[in-house]
This record gives sequence, C-alpha cells and structure tokens, in this order.
Amino acid sequence: MHLMTDPATPATDPATPATDPATPATDPATPATDASAPRRDHYPHRVVVPTRWLDNDVYGHVNNVVYYAYFDAIINRYLITEGGLDIATGPIIGLVVESHCRFRRPLTFPEDIDAGLRIGKLGRTSVRYELALFSQGEPDAAAEGWVVHVFVDRQTRRPAPLPDPIRAALTRLVALAPPQP
Amino acid sequence: MHLMTDPATPATDPATPATDPATPATDPATPATDASAPRRDHYPHRVVVPTRWLDNDVYGHVNNVVYYAYFDAIINRYLITEGGLDIATGPIIGLVVESHCRFRRPLTFPEDIDAGLRIGKLGRTSVRYELALFSQGEPDAAAEGWVVHVFVDRQTRRPAPLPDPIRAALTRLVALAPPQP
Amino acid sequence: MHLMTDPATPATDPATPATDPATPATDPATPATDASAPRRDHYPHRVVVPTRWLDNDVYGHVNNVVYYAYFDAIINRYLITEGGLDIATGPIIGLVVESHCRFRRPLTFPEDIDAGLRIGKLGRTSVRYELALFSQGEPDAAAEGWVVHVFVDRQTRRPAPLPDPIRAALTRLVALAPPQP
Amino acid sequence: MHLMTDPATPATDPATPATDPATPATDPATPATDASAPRRDHYPHRVVVPTRWLDNDVYGHVNNVVYYAYFDAIINRYLITEGGLDIATGPIIGLVVESHCRFRRPLTFPEDIDAGLRIGKLGRTSVRYELALFSQGEPDAAAEGWVVHVFVDRQTRRPAPLPDPIRAALTRLVALAPPQP
Repeated sequence: MHLMTDPATPATDPATPATDPATPATDPATPATDASAPRRDHYPHRVVVPTRWLDNDVYGHVNNVVYYAYFDAIINRYLITEGGLDIATGPIIGLVVESHCRFRRPLTFPEDIDAGLRIGKLGRTSVRYELALFSQGEPDAAAEGWVVHVFVDRQTRRPAPLPDPIRAALTRLVALAPPQP
Repeated sequence: MHLMTDPATPATDPATPATDPATPATDPATPATDASAPRRDHYPHRVVVPTRWLDNDVYGHVNNVVYYAYFDAIINRYLITEGGLDIATGPIIGLVVESHCRFRRPLTFPEDIDAGLRIGKLGRTSVRYELALFSQGEPDAAAEGWVVHVFVDRQTRRPAPLPDPIRAALTRLVALAPPQP
Repeated sequence: MHLMTDPATPATDPATPATDPATPATDPATPATDASAPRRDHYPHRVVVPTRWLDNDVYGHVNNVVYYAYFDAIINRYLITEGGLDIATGPIIGLVVESHCRFRRPLTFPEDIDAGLRIGKLGRTSVRYELALFSQGEPDAAAEGWVVHVFVDRQTRRPAPLPDPIRAALTRLVALAPPQP
Repeated sequence: MHLMTDPATPATDPATPATDPATPATDPATPATDASAPRRDHYPHRVVVPTRWLDNDVYGHVNNVVYYAYFDAIINRYLITEGGLDIATGPIIGLVVESHCRFRRPLTFPEDIDAGLRIGKLGRTSVRYELALFSQGEPDAAAEGWVVHVFVDRQTRRPAPLPDPIRAALTRLVALAPPQP
C-alpha cells in the first residue's frame, strides 16, 4: 500500500481488487443515467422507507451511515414478518459479519425512499442480502449495498442452520438472473 | 446469481470477486487470535472512542451500523483538527462514495474502543481511509473497514483537488507497507 | 433538593412543580386503560412512523431517545411540506429550546407507530408542539411529549417572527380545547 | 389550550405551569452569562463526552435528540461501572418514564463536552437524574435536563426496589443543596 498520485491508478489492496475504491464509479456531481446503476426490477422485495430529520447531516443530505440503518431495518423487518424471526427470544439470530455500500446520488430528508431487497446468496448458515435505494421517480439507484448475516445460536453464538421458515422466505427473494455487469 | 447450497461455493457476483461474502472470514463464535486480523501498529493514527448506550442493539452488542458512525467521527475529526477542514463554510467538503466493514468480534457498551486510522490511497480528489476497531487489551481488530471520500466543491458538488493542508495531514497517515495478506 | 425516602413525596424542584418526576404517573407494568393518557382525537395531524431495527435498545423496546427523533421528523416534515420551510437555504429556521416526553408503554420495532401532532401555543417567534405516539389498535398513547421551537434568523440566530406560510400551517393544528387534566 | 398572540402570555397547560414553554428562558442568540444556568459544581459526577459527526444536524450543531443520547450513556455507564448494573442478564433494569431538556447554547462536533450528573431524588423504585452539558471553558451549561428511571424486574417489568449497590452509588451523587431558583 503506497501513496498514489492519481486515483485512477489500480488498487493493489487484496480486499478490493475489482473496484478501485479511490476511483468512485460515479461522479457524484453527474447524476445522469448510469448504465451500471441497479434498477427496481432487480429487487423482488420492495418497500418505502420514510426519512427522518436526523438522517441528514451537516452537508444537507442523508448521512452515509444511515443507509446501513435502512438496510438493517429492511432486512430484519422481512425476517420477522415473512420468516418468523423472533428477535426477543428466538433460539437463532442473524449477526452481520460484513457489509458494503456504494453511494451514487444523494438522498435527502424529507423524501420517502423506495428500497429493494434481493438475496444474492443463500448458504447453510449465512445469507448475502443485496439492497438498493431509489429516490421516488428515479429509475437508477441512489445507492446499492450488501450485507452478510451469519445465523448463530443465541446463547453460544456459534453458526447454526437457517430455520426453515426463514429459508423459505429468503428463497423467494433469490435473484434468478445476475445483475448487469 | 443463483441459490447456493453451501456458503463456501465461490461467489459469481462481479462486485465482490475476491471475498466470498456469504463465507465470513472469521467464525464469529471463535474469537481466538486470527492471523488475518489487523493489529494496532498497522494504523499510525490512534484514538479512543467511548461507546454510548444506544450503540448496543437488541442483541446486546454494538450494532453494525454504528461502526460506520465511529469511522465518520474519526475521519472528520482528523480532517478538521489536523487538516483544517471547515465543515460549516469551507469551499471543499468530503463526500462518502463507498464504504465497507468486516465484523470479527463484538464490541459492547460501555467499553471504550481503541481505533486506528491509516490512508490506503491518496488520490487527487479522493481518499481511501482504512480503519480498525479494537477492544482494549485485545491485539486483534474487532472490525476493519474502509471509507472512500471524494472531495467536492461545496456549491457545485463537482470533484475538487484536496486542499493542501488536508493533503499534508493525510500524507502523514499513508501506510508505508502493505498489510499482511 | 434532598434524599427522598419515598418517590411519592412531593418534589420541590421549581423546574417541575406539577409533576413529581420521581413518581411516574403510570406504572410501566400496568398497561391498562389510563384516563390521563392522550387519545388520537386530541391531535389534528396524524401520521404513521415506521420503526427501525436500531430504534430498539438492549432491553428490547424503542429507546427513549428515539421518541424525540420521531418528534423531530414529524415536526420538520410538517413545516417543510405544509409550511414551506426551506431547511437548506431558507432565511428562518426553527431551533429547539426545550423538550419533554412521558413514556407510558413500550413501543417495539418492527411495529408501525401512529403519531399525532397539535400546536399547544403559537407565539410570535416560538411554537409549542405537542405530540403523542400510539401503538396501532391502542386507544391510549404510549408516549406524549412536547417540543418548543424558537424561530431564528439563519445567520444571526436571533429570534425572528414565524414566516406567514408556516404560521398558517401551524394555526390549522392549534388545539381548540384543552386536553383533559 | 388556545392560540396565543404573544409567547410571553402565561401558559395554562397543566403539564408545565412553572415554565412558559413557548417563552424560552434564554434567548438562543444571547450567549452571555446567565445567572440561571447550572454550573459544573452543581454536579458531583463529571465526565467528558466526545461528539460524533452524525451528532450535528443540517443546521450545523448537535441535534436536540442527541443530548438525550448523551444522558442515557452517562447514566447507564455510571450504573454499570459504579453500581454493578448488569444490562445483559441482571434481574433489575432501569426504564425511562419521563425526560426533559432545556437547550441554552449550541454544542458542535468535533468539540468534547463536559457533562455533569447528580441525583435529584432517590426513591424506593425510582430515581431522578439531573444532568448538564458544558462546552469546555464555558462556566454556564449549554443544556440541562433530567431523566426519571423506574427500576423494574426484567421479566415482569413490575417496579422493583433499587438493588443496594446501585442505591449506594447513586446516594453519593444526591445533590445536598437545591439548585438556584
């Protein structure tokens, strides 16, 4: 890892070979249609997320941290209402082991956000959720991210197979076709 | 993208080729020393971050979202105090265009967290910050993440070169050697 | 101020003469119908507030702090959409100078909350908002609170008269009858 | 409750007889020394609270909601470290039934805040905490607030006497003299 003179120089960090993290895929000042941005029909589960006053930060838009709070709310609400997850006393819980987000355009309180959720991978004890957030009326995602849950025993915190009702609920959201490259 | 029967099956998602996102690098139930976990001496800038009551979620540990709030606070405090960033009226501001975190072990209010910051890449208009969080007395990171800022003109939101004082401050944190693979 | 042997002993704190703050008006373990709890028809403006995962704290219910975030979101959304408040560049902004909440029953993610807003007092430069939060299907409020805004000039931060469109919007929500004692 | 033509007109709301909630006690634009503002020596327990980036809202200062998050963190940290409260599995927990804050001057990330805590009333099953927040170097409080906990059985959520170690810890912070009127 060394000082780069230009952000377009390829990264050598093994953690992120395919994306040059110092080279944003989208120019934040160019909100034109972006062929690589996800669209709503890539996501079988869609919900509306109202923003809150405190979501905006001092720069006047929803803070990057808050996008992950939206993701958490969308994922867990789906697990609870569709998969029967009991967050208070159930034997199996989902812990986040990795997450990522790419921010393409600003979102701003008081707008309502259209959100989409799909399942990128459904393992025996883990799940990769893929999400996107859209301003209403905009075809291209303002942000896209993913979150990996490992399901564990509540007491021992050791990995445990996904309960059947959760697996069934998540299977319905598995993306059938890969997103466009 | 298709239903995987086992999380160890390689991912095909072009966004994350090198890491299998549904195969967590660390077993969350096995907090033994992990050769791949970052250590404090990988990070030239180190600060202590007190946790808050509301950082913990219903599962009793700091929620994954809050790690990104720690990152934002650490980065911006450094930019302000060491680089002279004026978040209220300065002409150039830093916007997050991408972020990532890997969660290895839990952190829990009321502990104080040791945090480290280094610069992974320093471009003309963008910066990749790399951070790690440690429980006090633990050599291995509880979590590691990165955040990419693009610096933009406050009014036009078009990319703008890093101001010299910020570049100087960040240059001091550029990692000289690659982290261990 | 001195050590009380029983919370029913009247408070002498001049800041809160009418309510004995160490004597909660309602037993948190007795969620029976409470004649003093506000009802929906006390509040002319009503909205639904979805909860988020991180609203719950380690005790499994929405944290007390988050109620105030709901209040802020409800108030500001109303000021923006009904009163034309421009939070980004408008000349007049509303600053909170005092707030209060009484918590009667728990609220819990993932429930959707019914919220009500009325105006308790509408001054020349200040406004007292009164709010209540209800679990869906419950007649009695789970919580009631109030927030006082002083409107100020954005630059000087000196009190400024409420802009006419905001005054008109708020006048529509002024409570015509006092709430039951 | 009726439309007031002037905020100085006395309130008739039975919930707040002593303070006119639409008449802020302090002019937010006049940060001169205020005889009624609490001072540090009114509070026997004092801690430093670092601010975070996201504490600031779009108006450039710490959002009012966040003050209550500071209160929660200060109170619970004291209960845990000084009173032995076990928030994960202990039989008795403290629930907030009422809270209040008066905001006198702005606080702003990245400043570190001096905070003070005292006990206003210590009942058999409930406690009134009184807190103040100060900018470093400022004698007068930027904000003052109070929070009432009722201690309850974790399972039944019925009021329960304060455990002895917690009572002992809180007794040390009981204010011996009343604050100035």
